[in-house]
Amino acid sequence: MSKVLGIGIAGLGTVGTGFLKQLKGLKAKSTRSANIKVIKIAVKSIKKKRDLPIKQLPLTSNTLSLAEDDSIDVVVELIGGSKGIAYNLVKRSLKNKKHVITANKALMAMHGNELAKIAEKNNVSLNYEAAIAGGIPIVKAVRENLRFNKIKKIYGILNGTCNYILTKMDRNLGDFKDVLSDAQKKGFAELDPTFDIEGIDAAHKITLLSCLAFDVPISFSSTYIEGISKIDTKDFKYASEFGYVIKLLAVSSKVSNKVEQRVHPCFVKQASDIAKVENELNAVIVEDNVIGKNMFQGPGAGAGPTGASVMSDLMEIVRGTINFPLGSSIDAKKKITFQKIENLSFPYYVRIVGQDRAGVMAKISRALSKKGISIKSIIQKPSNKTKYAEIILITHKVKESSLKVALNQIKRLPEVAASAKFIRIEDSL
Amino acid sequence: MSKVLGIGIAGLGTVGTGFLKQLKGLKAKSTRSANIKVIKIAVKSIKKKRDLPIKQLPLTSNTLSLAEDDSIDVVVELIGGSKGIAYNLVKRSLKNKKHVITANKALMAMHGNELAKIAEKNNVSLNYEAAIAGGIPIVKAVRENLRFNKIKKIYGILNGTCNYILTKMDRNLGDFKDVLSDAQKKGFAELDPTFDIEGIDAAHKITLLSCLAFDVPISFSSTYIEGISKIDTKDFKYASEFGYVIKLLAVSSKVSNKVEQRVHPCFVKQASDIAKVENELNAVIVEDNVIGKNMFQGPGAGAGPTGASVMSDLMEIVRGTINFPLGSSIDAKKKITFQKIENLSFPYYVRIVGQDRAGVMAKISRALSKKGISIKSIIQKPSNKTKYAEIILITHKVKESSLKVALNQIKRLPEVAASAKFIRIEDSL
Repeated sequence: MSKVLGIGIAGLGTVGTGFLKQLKGLKAKSTRSANIKVIKIAVKSIKKKRDLPIKQLPLTSNTLSLAEDDSIDVVVELIGGSKGIAYNLVKRSLKNKKHVITANKALMAMHGNELAKIAEKNNVSLNYEAAIAGGIPIVKAVRENLRFNKIKKIYGILNGTCNYILTKMDRNLGDFKDVLSDAQKKGFAELDPTFDIEGIDAAHKITLLSCLAFDVPISFSSTYIEGISKIDTKDFKYASEFGYVIKLLAVSSKVSNKVEQRVHPCFVKQASDIAKVENELNAVIVEDNVIGKNMFQGPGAGAGPTGASVMSDLMEIVRGTINFPLGSSIDAKKKITFQKIENLSFPYYVRIVGQDRAGVMAKISRALSKKGISIKSIIQKPSNKTKYAEIILITHKVKESSLKVALNQIKRLPEVAASAKFIRIEDSL
Repeated sequence: MSKVLGIGIAGLGTVGTGFLKQLKGLKAKSTRSANIKVIKIAVKSIKKKRDLPIKQLPLTSNTLSLAEDDSIDVVVELIGGSKGIAYNLVKRSLKNKKHVITANKALMAMHGNELAKIAEKNNVSLNYEAAIAGGIPIVKAVRENLRFNKIKKIYGILNGTCNYILTKMDRNLGDFKDVLSDAQKKGFAELDPTFDIEGIDAAHKITLLSCLAFDVPISFSSTYIEGISKIDTKDFKYASEFGYVIKLLAVSSKVSNKVEQRVHPCFVKQASDIAKVENELNAVIVEDNVIGKNMFQGPGAGAGPTGASVMSDLMEIVRGTINFPLGSSIDAKKKITFQKIENLSFPYYVRIVGQDRAGVMAKISRALSKKGISIKSIIQKPSNKTKYAEIILITHKVKESSLKVALNQIKRLPEVAASAKFIRIEDSL
């Protein structure tokens, strides 16, 4: 390829800077010696001082002009956000038959179906390796390889901020607030951490992986989301007593033609592969009927890893490879029912605070057994509230809707101090 | 693509059977709905009974005819062996402008440069995902993505048989012979296990990964190879006392413009990621300056995993993607010096049997210190041979050539019973 491949970059934050540094170091490393040229870089403030290895950056503040510039073949969207300028830029670029690379999981999770359809129609690429699990090449692995193996389950740790916080809490280094504030100081958490700690970021990512793995349309609203902000340090202590650790898992699986998509804290066995993924690391595990289990582990964020993934998306375009953005044609995606969390069954960890006197446990047991919930293990400990005891249960597998009804009954018992807390147990990992 | 893509398969062993089952289940799963047709299957014996889901297999005993058949677009070589029929078939097929998929690491390690050159000249694919780490998509990950990140080191557990044996020995389930014979019964080791246990199979694979990671030609003769057959159960016991486990690692790295390629048993820290890869699992870790560390873990062998990798190679051809077989053009590969193991430095575990009396340790220490080798830890235990003691040393980092000279001196001491044994320590993992 001797023709110049013109690149337009929108956004020069962490990812943009990482990508530019990578581009600078590319030189003779490319597969076909492509002649890549950065035509324009759109930024909010042109005057801001930047520490970058390229002199005289071709800056512009007119972001949408990238979509209209005839010398730009590839638009790299690194602005973020599911609406507004990012959405308009990507849509207009694809409409104008430009390849698009984006690191924007929110955009893809909310508008991926529409955008993929335009890309497909115009036979251009829409690549988003950096949007999921940073430097782990999981989009390509699933989109181009593993999806042919009848995937049963795809799950993992997709948010480094949460995994960092949970690891520190597990090591007894502070409660949620302390650890979050420490993570913010160290740059592992944003100043507004809502998207991370409430599980929304991980939900964006598992929604996309689910689409690739199960050939279903992207459906963010079908993903159940629960974050980590309500986990108590004592939950880690009890988890450990039962042989578990607590992880925020993102899970998608297909059972009897229904697909489930969910993000929530889980008890996972201490000996499981996923339990060993610590600190800010990400990991994705793909289970299928052919290979068995493939695990991918690496850094999920940062300038280097995400910049590298943007680069690998660019190299795919340089090589002339155009894949269906969502693995298969958007028109071939299956109309499928997404499973509601209430219909799923788990074993549960349940923590109840009740009066420390005879008969309370009997009432709790009765409420559970009425809904067919049997108890596997039980611990009763005096609570720090006087006259109250903490009752910790591990249940056998039961439907979530039944558990919720039973816990609602238990809450109404006069002897019980507050709503019971529960955490799902992923015992099969 | 509405044109029929004709497939010729050579070999119907484990991989061939796995691949055929996958093809059968493919149907609408392919990215572009390709019309794939199996034209011919070459086997040794046409009359052999086979349990396969396809009736009336188009069998032939004329393997080389696949290379000449105009209706065959893709030849899938699943015979094995670096010479003879496999080599001739692949070479002739590429010369006749057919795409080739092979699971043959020996062939690629010995003749990959020549074969890649033909493929490149004729603009056809030479894909070999199944040749390395079974179902882990590591060839594509390195060849198409990670190599742009200035890889520093690529290493892993590339032989499931050895990892299975070492795991069992570590758990004290028998000595090498017992565990090997158990592995053979369970199908985790071949009847002639030489290629596996002597490290040759892992060496084929790391040689190929090194070529992809560092843009050097394939050079199998530059790979240092040492197997696991001489490891004693007591080495595991001592490893554990020092906080290590023993793994057969395949390692390639680039340091000051020299590339090292080596396969040998290693002490690795119990807490390291690689130590946690157990039984017949494979794992590859890629370290670079941009992403940091990416780990891929999965099954390294078996009909399903290898068949799935052959299938993903085929899907790449269906999508019309033709990559340089070795990542970059064979003419662009760097002439580089490969580092000899003697010039590398490690900390070492050393086990010496010497007379159990005063002065012996002093003599051993003197021989070591003369070559600048300092001792980090030492254990002395009575040996089962009367009057002899076993001296276990962990050295600080030292050049291998120096260690060998020192151990040669120590061997000649009258108080020392036999050659010292040593195992390299990979402390940086």
